[in-house]
Amino acid sequence: MKHTKTDLTACGIIAEYNPFHNGHLYQLQTARKQSHADVMVALISGNYVERGEPAIVDKWQRAQLALRAGADLVIELPFADAVEPADRFATGAVRLLAALGCQSLAFGSEEPDADYAQLGQELAALPDLHAAFTDYTQTYATQLNQYYQEKLHLNISHANHLLGLSYATANARLQQPLQLIAVPRVGSAHDQAGAHDQFASASAIRTKLLAGDLAGLAAVVPPSTWQFLQVHSDWLTWDQLFPFLKYRIQSASLAELRRIYQMSEGLEYRFQQQIGASQTFAAFLKALKTKRYTYARLRRLCLYTLLNVTTSEMKQAYDQPYLQVLGFNQAGQAYLHQIKKTVTVPLVTRVDAKMGRADGLLGLEVRVDTLIQQLTGVPQDYGRHPIFKGKELE
Amino acid sequence: MKHTKTDLTACGIIAEYNPFHNGHLYQLQTARKQSHADVMVALISGNYVERGEPAIVDKWQRAQLALRAGADLVIELPFADAVEPADRFATGAVRLLAALGCQSLAFGSEEPDADYAQLGQELAALPDLHAAFTDYTQTYATQLNQYYQEKLHLNISHANHLLGLSYATANARLQQPLQLIAVPRVGSAHDQAGAHDQFASASAIRTKLLAGDLAGLAAVVPPSTWQFLQVHSDWLTWDQLFPFLKYRIQSASLAELRRIYQMSEGLEYRFQQQIGASQTFAAFLKALKTKRYTYARLRRLCLYTLLNVTTSEMKQAYDQPYLQVLGFNQAGQAYLHQIKKTVTVPLVTRVDAKMGRADGLLGLEVRVDTLIQQLTGVPQDYGRHPIFKGKELE
Repeated sequence: MKHTKTDLTACGIIAEYNPFHNGHLYQLQTARKQSHADVMVALISGNYVERGEPAIVDKWQRAQLALRAGADLVIELPFADAVEPADRFATGAVRLLAALGCQSLAFGSEEPDADYAQLGQELAALPDLHAAFTDYTQTYATQLNQYYQEKLHLNISHANHLLGLSYATANARLQQPLQLIAVPRVGSAHDQAGAHDQFASASAIRTKLLAGDLAGLAAVVPPSTWQFLQVHSDWLTWDQLFPFLKYRIQSASLAELRRIYQMSEGLEYRFQQQIGASQTFAAFLKALKTKRYTYARLRRLCLYTLLNVTTSEMKQAYDQPYLQVLGFNQAGQAYLHQIKKTVTVPLVTRVDAKMGRADGLLGLEVRVDTLIQQLTGVPQDYGRHPIFKGKELE
Repeated sequence: MKHTKTDLTACGIIAEYNPFHNGHLYQLQTARKQSHADVMVALISGNYVERGEPAIVDKWQRAQLALRAGADLVIELPFADAVEPADRFATGAVRLLAALGCQSLAFGSEEPDADYAQLGQELAALPDLHAAFTDYTQTYATQLNQYYQEKLHLNISHANHLLGLSYATANARLQQPLQLIAVPRVGSAHDQAGAHDQFASASAIRTKLLAGDLAGLAAVVPPSTWQFLQVHSDWLTWDQLFPFLKYRIQSASLAELRRIYQMSEGLEYRFQQQIGASQTFAAFLKALKTKRYTYARLRRLCLYTLLNVTTSEMKQAYDQPYLQVLGFNQAGQAYLHQIKKTVTVPLVTRVDAKMGRADGLLGLEVRVDTLIQQLTGVPQDYGRHPIFKGKELE
């Protein structure tokens, strides 16, 4: 076991980095200080994100930018965790950080002084949240908020605080909970206003990028991201995916659509009725929308449909957790070396044919990534190696 | 029954008109003379043709050109008949012409003096041809030729003669066989050489059109086709369909692929293995090709896969014949009026929602046409009316 430093500590961050900006950098640096961890682990969504759309650049590019900005180890949050409402997203992600041996979990919060560990225990003692929200007549956040208010008299108006509580709840359910580190949110007041000084939301940045307008972005992202944004313009959005979704909905049988994860309550009829006249994804979503379903749920359902994701596949993927390594620096590499004998789920640095088979460990991941590969021409799983020092390891 | 002229006779031609050219015109005019029919009926393939590809222009445009060139009535040969090997193609088509009350069937032949009625009876007495050809190690034509040679000592080297024999066989199996009219093929010697004088094959014409080279085409098509070709360039080919096929094969489960019509002998594995590295449809076909399968069979299988056509759907469509009217002139209209009380299968002039449902009469047709509609923006079934005097009837 030479070359192994045995007592490195790690702090995990759960993120999408879509794209990596100054708020992420601030969070990473602050978490490093607050946690005193040797290694900062970023657990990032893969090619699709929580709100049911593709990330604007692929997971390898986003991992690269996270490494350049200071993350030590970047791991992929699998599709089955990443494209889910906040509570499931949090449960899957926290579980993986625990499997990685992280001592702490850092997250942004508008209320960093809240006692998340205590709140997490109280919330974890409540009945399963997800089961309580089968109605979907209001946004998930609204329902969760009402639920918290009813049960714990909590009044939560901030999105990140709410997500923090989801992490805290998932964490409280672990056998060995992680230390929770709430990093004060900065710049969140600018989420609506766009990029006026050094902070802007990822959403505001994406809006500018998709409009081809780079003005002001240099100030709100680290130099590594800025370099990247200047030489790219092939952002992935639903615009590229929509022709495939339309083709699929129109050529699938109702029985096939019914097998799609979350295709409930006759939504398959609505999908087939509304798709023909819809010329854009936005128009289709609008046509699908009723009071009963939020846009986020419908967007995710469209993604599951596009990617032909069935209920049993999501369950299988959830039941077989793994850690796909997207990249690391020397500290990250040393940490991987330290944990590789003790990590409780498979650590994947190279996807082989067996893993990628439909019934394999990464079967779902490889399949959902294939469409990104078709659209970009860039391999996503097979043949890829973790990124090290800005390059892929051979 | 006023306004009904009761003794119109009709002669049917089975064609793809992809696109309509001088050879088709010659056949139409000669068949009219030889048959002495009042009405020339063209039964044309819809948006997909026998060799497993989209027609270069949609069925309505091809019907329009056939009417302008002199056809009196244009009926669609449904997908379930049109995209099949010659014997099934012939069986489906001849059955529909009989249902339409045609007295005769005209077809091009390199051996117009052959006694097709007699040959058809002899061939019809043989065991089912299709069942005998499950090997597919050679082209269908080669196998059929060998079979004919073995059984009847016929030596058939000409493609149209062979197809004529398929018509004759199907015809001999009818309760009331039609009169068979073999029209001498002209210009077939030019099939390879391209368009040098007034005749060229549809295949040679398509090759020039797809290369954007109109030189010489004015001489080999009627003025109506020439006008059309000059103002269009958006030909439908596998190039436009291939991204959807690739997406579908890569996102489908093996179980889903196995449900596709003609997906036999583990071909679904081969499809999934070969699609990833294939950048074009031609490359994919080449990667699929083995001695066991002809290109035509593989091309049709790709089309069934793209359009998600299952075995049960093909059977259902075959078991529910119908006649979709694409257009007519006054003679055609009078003929439709004459037969409408006696025609033995549904005569469809307007597709309604019930017909277009998955289990409806035109369920398969409407579905396969939807992709063409997605690609062209032009409605294909719902909302369309037969063409009359160059315009659609309202």
